[in-house]
Parts: sequence; structure tokens; C-alpha cells
Amino acid sequence: MAGDLSRLSINQMTVRQLSLPELTTACVRWGVPGVGLWRAPVQEYGVAAAARLVRDAGLRVTTLCRGGFLTAVDPGERAAALADNRAAVDECAALGTGTLVLVSGGLPAGERDLGAARERIADALAELAPYAGEHGVRLAIEPLHPMFASDRCVVSTLDQALALAERFPAEQVGVVVDTYHIWWDDRAPDAVARAGRQGRIHSFQLADWVTPLPAGVLNGRGLIGDGAVDLRRWRERVDAAGYTGPIEVELFNDELWRRDGVELLADVARRYVRHAL
Amino acid sequence: MAGDLSRLSINQMTVRQLSLPELTTACVRWGVPGVGLWRAPVQEYGVAAAARLVRDAGLRVTTLCRGGFLTAVDPGERAAALADNRAAVDECAALGTGTLVLVSGGLPAGERDLGAARERIADALAELAPYAGEHGVRLAIEPLHPMFASDRCVVSTLDQALALAERFPAEQVGVVVDTYHIWWDDRAPDAVARAGRQGRIHSFQLADWVTPLPAGVLNGRGLIGDGAVDLRRWRERVDAAGYTGPIEVELFNDELWRRDGVELLADVARRYVRHAL
Repeated sequence: MAGDLSRLSINQMTVRQLSLPELTTACVRWGVPGVGLWRAPVQEYGVAAAARLVRDAGLRVTTLCRGGFLTAVDPGERAAALADNRAAVDECAALGTGTLVLVSGGLPAGERDLGAARERIADALAELAPYAGEHGVRLAIEPLHPMFASDRCVVSTLDQALALAERFPAEQVGVVVDTYHIWWDDRAPDAVARAGRQGRIHSFQLADWVTPLPAGVLNGRGLIGDGAVDLRRWRERVDAAGYTGPIEVELFNDELWRRDGVELLADVARRYVRHAL
Repeated sequence: MAGDLSRLSINQMTVRQLSLPELTTACVRWGVPGVGLWRAPVQEYGVAAAARLVRDAGLRVTTLCRGGFLTAVDPGERAAALADNRAAVDECAALGTGTLVLVSGGLPAGERDLGAARERIADALAELAPYAGEHGVRLAIEPLHPMFASDRCVVSTLDQALALAERFPAEQVGVVVDTYHIWWDDRAPDAVARAGRQGRIHSFQLADWVTPLPAGVLNGRGLIGDGAVDLRRWRERVDAAGYTGPIEVELFNDELWRRDGVELLADVARRYVRHAL
């Protein structure tokens, strides 16, 4: 395939119609060197087996999705979330990836205080960050689009994510820069630069913004090049911030999931070259 | 009805199942002193007739929705938008309301530069603001939730709206503070205070945030008290900023539109007292 794919990583969710072996085979076929994995399909396949499969294919695991959901008020729920995040760190180490993506969690039922919820995330990170550091894993706080603030992630901007991350060493806690979530934010370019200076860009993800959004808004991320986001401009900003790592394409999209996964992966790679490089 | 409704205004869209005469009758019945009107149903009824109807009922028109859509690149489209906004200013004057709500417009097809689109809005405001001022009408820039940034309004935060408004006299251009659009933004409370100091809060609107969002995300605004927004806290913030004007409830919600409009209006008034006062 024409174009430099050396930084490209395909997030497993983008082509979730492919099994893990199908995914690794397709990556090798098209010359995509990185994969971002999700815990559920990896656990189903077996963590050790998945690690071996990916390693034998010569692929790099760029991220594991996802830890997080750290906003619980209930002590039992909080303890369970912390234990689950420690398990996710262990899985990262087993898979040979240094980055655990955190979706921080929404407002618990009946709660309306976003600031208090963010402080509970900080409290949880204080327990998790050293554990992650001991295992060579960096926690990457992903700001999610504000439309997810109530039910999925109270961290809505890169500034908010950095304000949390900055309380901890950069080798323990950083951020995810995902164009889908931050493209609308005129403050995000400065935040990208700051994150880069601090060495806290732990993952860079591409998705495009297309409308109309589907019901529930989760599975409407646009194929790169189809939407409103100037992907190349964002890639240049992230590069200018000093980031030299993988560029991961993560799309949740019901329509794309109905396509042939192997061909979709090739399409993503072509579009990555055309619209982001 | 128990509680102080003296600042309450019902936006016509909240109970769009009611005709204009039904709306005014219901407002008088429940003691709701203000209405926010929309151009299309007012034009259909006749602007002069609508003005007389509302005046004879003793109601105050708190806002007219909406002008805006000022992001066109094409000169012909731009001229048409400016003419339409001047007509909207004229309608405001005829209805006796001093506030025209602006939904600024999204990205034209193929455009990806949000900053350039915002500058085109500023250019258009430079033409419209004096005209509005001459007619005793204030243009109120409404930041819309970032999920509308591509297709409806490139002004996504109160800070962005203020950055545009601040280029003009406060009696010509200000902002709308609508809880639905800004509740997630940790910078919005400071922006509310700044807008208040400048005398630029030209409208304050309440809606709650509920999930899951419906397809297209337009008609999923929550009945006040049903969602994640601390409405009383926002009302207190806006009051603390020096705002003493009407508090308008504007909901777009397919489920609510299936209810009896007169009863819905009473429900809104009760919930306004319980959750916002």
C-alpha cells in the first residue's frame, strides 16, 4: 500500500467484525504495524494467547482500552473499580503495551456535581498511578466529548484531563488526544502543546465528526476524511508538540461494522495517508 | 399556583403543540408572565396579530428565536442571511421584544475551519449590530452544545460567544446563557460572571440534560428536574452575575410534545419553582 504506515495503529473496535487472529492477519497483509486492543475480546481469547498472537505477527500493541469509571461514591463500587483498574494494568503489562486508556466515568445516579466527580477521579488516580508506574504502564486520561459528560466521562476537555494528570508524574499519568472528542474546542490546540511539553501525550487517536448522530450517539464516529475535522492539521499540531508515537484510528460506527473488516482496514489505511499524513 | 413565577417565561417551542392563542390563554391561566416566540409560527399567525394577541393577554415577549446562520462563504447566501436577520430584528421590534436569539450557523459543506467560520460571524455582526441597536433590539449569541458545532453552531462555549460579543457595544450584542448547552463546561461559571459584569446576559434559559440522546440529538432536552443539571446552582450563578431578567424554559423534546400542552405548561411551572428557585 502506498504511503508511510509506520505510525499507524488500528484500534480493534474499528474493525470489531474481525476476530483477533483475523485482525492480526489483516494488519500484516496491509502493513499496519500497530493495534489498539480492548479488554473484553482479549480476555475472551485469553490474555497470554492474545499477547503471543500479536507478538508472533510482529505487531505492536499501542493501547489497551479501557480502565477508568472512577467516579463512584459508594465505597464498595469504588473498591471494585480500583481492583478492576489494577487488573487492567496487569493485562497491559502482559500484552506488552505501556498505555492504559481511561474513560473516567459519568455522574452516579442522582449526582449533579461534575467538579466533585472529577475530584473522586483524582483520588482514585492517587491509588492507581504508583501501581501503574511499578508495572511500566502509563494511565492515559481520555477526555470524551461533552455529550458524554453525564453518563460516561465527566472529563470533557483536554484542559480538564491535563489538570488531573498534572497532579502525577508524567510517566504515570497522561492524556489521550482524540480528534473526535476535542476537535470543536478552540482551547485544545494550546492544551496539546502543553501536554506535549510535559511528555503527557500517551496516545493520539483519529476519528472524524459526521452528522446526523445516531440514537445514543456512541456509534456514529466518522470514517476519516468523511467529516468536519481537519485531521492533518491536528496531526501536525500533535507532532509539533513533540509527539512521535503511534497514530491510532478508533471508530465506533454501526455502518462500518456491517462492511467487510479486511477491506475496511485497507480503506482506513488509505484514508489515513490521504487525510492525516 | 404556589411559588413566585414573576420571572418565568415559557419558550413557545416547549409547548409547540399549542397554537399561539392556546399558549397565551394557558400562560394567563397558570400565571406565567413571559413567552419566548419563534419566527415561523409568529409569521404564520401574522406578526402584528401575534403582537396584539400577546399584548392583550398582558404577556411579555422575552425573546424571539431566531436569527443567525451567519457562516456562509458564498456571497449570495451571506447577503440573504443578513437580509433575513434584518427582517428578524424588525419582527422583534414589532413584537415588543428587545432580544433576538442568534444560532450562529455551522460549517458550510466542505469547510473544516471553525475559527474562520467564527470570524465570518463577527463580520456579519458588524453589519447587523448597528441595525439592531437602531431598532432597540439586542442580538444574543447563543453558544450551542459542542455536539452541534459542525451542522448548527460553531459557537460552542460561553467564552467563544463572549469573545464575539465583546467586539460590539453591550446594548447591541450579548449572549444567551442556556444550561443545556453549557452545563458541562467548567469555564462557564467564570464566563457567566464576566458576561454579567459587562451587561451582556441578554437571555437566561433552562433545560435539563438527559440521556440517552435521540437520533439527531436535537429533540432530547430534558424536562427540568429530570436530568444531570444543577439548575438552581446555575440560576444562583446568573443572579450573582447581576442578571435580574426573565428565566425562560426552552425544551425540544418529542416525548413532551405528545403530552397535553396546557398540563405540560403547568408541570414546567411547578418544576421551575421546585428545581430552579
